[in-house]
Amino acid sequence: MSGTSRRPLVLDLDTGIDDALALAYALGSPEVELVAVICSYGNVAVDTAVRNTHALLELLGYPDIPVYRGTDRALSASAAFEPPEGVARIHGANGLGGQHIGCMCRRAPGDGVDFLVRSADAGTQASRDAHFDGKNDVKTGGARGSSFYYVPTGPLTNLASALVRAPELARTLPRVTFMGGALTVPGNVTPCAEANVHNDPEAADVVLRLGLPTRMIGLDVTHQVVLTREDTARWRALGTSAGVLFADMTDHYIDIYEQNNPHMGGCALHDPLAVAAAIDPSLVGCLGANLRVDLEGPTRGRTVCDPERLREAQKTCEVAVTVDAPRFLAEFRKRVGRVLGAPRAR
Amino acid sequence: MSGTSRRPLVLDLDTGIDDALALAYALGSPEVELVAVICSYGNVAVDTAVRNTHALLELLGYPDIPVYRGTDRALSASAAFEPPEGVARIHGANGLGGQHIGCMCRRAPGDGVDFLVRSADAGTQASRDAHFDGKNDVKTGGARGSSFYYVPTGPLTNLASALVRAPELARTLPRVTFMGGALTVPGNVTPCAEANVHNDPEAADVVLRLGLPTRMIGLDVTHQVVLTREDTARWRALGTSAGVLFADMTDHYIDIYEQNNPHMGGCALHDPLAVAAAIDPSLVGCLGANLRVDLEGPTRGRTVCDPERLREAQKTCEVAVTVDAPRFLAEFRKRVGRVLGAPRAR
Repeated sequence: MSGTSRRPLVLDLDTGIDDALALAYALGSPEVELVAVICSYGNVAVDTAVRNTHALLELLGYPDIPVYRGTDRALSASAAFEPPEGVARIHGANGLGGQHIGCMCRRAPGDGVDFLVRSADAGTQASRDAHFDGKNDVKTGGARGSSFYYVPTGPLTNLASALVRAPELARTLPRVTFMGGALTVPGNVTPCAEANVHNDPEAADVVLRLGLPTRMIGLDVTHQVVLTREDTARWRALGTSAGVLFADMTDHYIDIYEQNNPHMGGCALHDPLAVAAAIDPSLVGCLGANLRVDLEGPTRGRTVCDPERLREAQKTCEVAVTVDAPRFLAEFRKRVGRVLGAPRAR
Repeated sequence: MSGTSRRPLVLDLDTGIDDALALAYALGSPEVELVAVICSYGNVAVDTAVRNTHALLELLGYPDIPVYRGTDRALSASAAFEPPEGVARIHGANGLGGQHIGCMCRRAPGDGVDFLVRSADAGTQASRDAHFDGKNDVKTGGARGSSFYYVPTGPLTNLASALVRAPELARTLPRVTFMGGALTVPGNVTPCAEANVHNDPEAADVVLRLGLPTRMIGLDVTHQVVLTREDTARWRALGTSAGVLFADMTDHYIDIYEQNNPHMGGCALHDPLAVAAAIDPSLVGCLGANLRVDLEGPTRGRTVCDPERLREAQKTCEVAVTVDAPRFLAEFRKRVGRVLGAPRAR
């Protein structure tokens, strides 16, 4: 696949361990070109996410990809988010399992929400131009005519903020594949709430109700794709700093899964599956649904079909409910292994 | 279709209004022969369900179909179930919208759970005999070799009691299509619990965990099939007592829906859809799942995928998540209209 036919990809990460794995998956995917990362809070505070993303991009040999600082708190929060103790335990104090990476961390080039609004505008314009020119290639094409993939793997605060600022994005943004939610399985923070939605239920509700087409990669499917120590041992054997760091960091994540979810036999690949399903939706089987988020009471943070839109023929969200786990895991091993073992990686 | 090729059907009803509609659907379906009704509690107390079932069978011209009295309470309950005020309001004080039907009500011929265990044994034996004879017709055939449809539309207490008494039923009973649960939508008693599962969460959990193949017709689909006053007006115009009674009774049910669910524009056809989907599974689209029921805390009564069995390839439950509502409604109008307007109906 030639470089010019790669579709631009913007990730929106709250850069903890599985975000790092998603970043590597994206960099190892020939179908896309990672053009920017927006940062969010959740697994870590937003400034830690920015720092971790810079450090990982340097480690993996892509120091020039810009990293934008997004929102630092939920729509309804009065103070910037700091990870509670339980979250810091899962992803390590620094969000990367306690593994320290040196970094020439630069200043963020601008605000993440501004960047998202501008990108969507530019994508729409590029698509119009392409349409007027009679062109409709993979770079500018797609059902809704925008030119890039946008994949948030943290809370949906940046996207909701962009939609509030520029409501036309609900019509112009291409389908957004996000990691978050739990439709048919229990949550992982409360019996009903998955962590990303739990961190900003109001933002997720805005995104799911405003008519924007979405694809939800929730715990329904991410708990079906499991990485084991056999995989991390292979990375360690690659002989690169990146391979060792990713192996050590992921082993920490597996340790936590062994304590909290001993039946799984490894760690869930939440965020990488969202990137993979954005690039190749055939990896998942989806149920069309019009979702809402519960905002009150003990079910706060639950993603659930909105009874008032249950009979509407048009469904805005494709909720992944099945996944071809063996095929995804094979792609994951190939793509991430490629990046961790590459000459450009440290 | 000849009488001899009809597959026997056993209903398990907590005979309120939509159970009455399910009974009419079954009697109007040429594919099946209703051979018995087991009664349960839920919409009404069990003895009221027995009485209502007798009365409805007489009204519709089938006074000889036996009606068995099932369990009168949930597995964990210390006293026989009496409907709380909210339930009595929905189905009317007598369970039939306050419509009184005269009845020669006979004594129940035996215990419903005993009958269920015996039927399953007999079905299995009949199937074995058919197999040895080289025959495998619709009456004795089917993937699991048993000879009858069993469709519970109330709490699953009778089925769970039968499974506890005769665990081999989990292997020998044919796939049980039941009305109950809510996987992707909110409950109708609590934000998480649907009424039938709410009435006996432990029983539903036993049924869903013991490996018995099931098909769940929950609020996910039953809230998509809506009956209106146009339909009840057509029944009233049939000129039979049955048509008038069903119209008046269902109008009461629609009244309640207009108060509680004004966006629906009519009443949900919960129990009839379960009977229809048992006879013709192609009416619904299903997601294979291994479910459990939450038994503790604010989510008590929720049906949800069991995280510990999420990655098992074999799924015991087919959860209906889509429904061909126009086709079901057309069948419903045809079949129920046929029964209400028939010469044998009063």
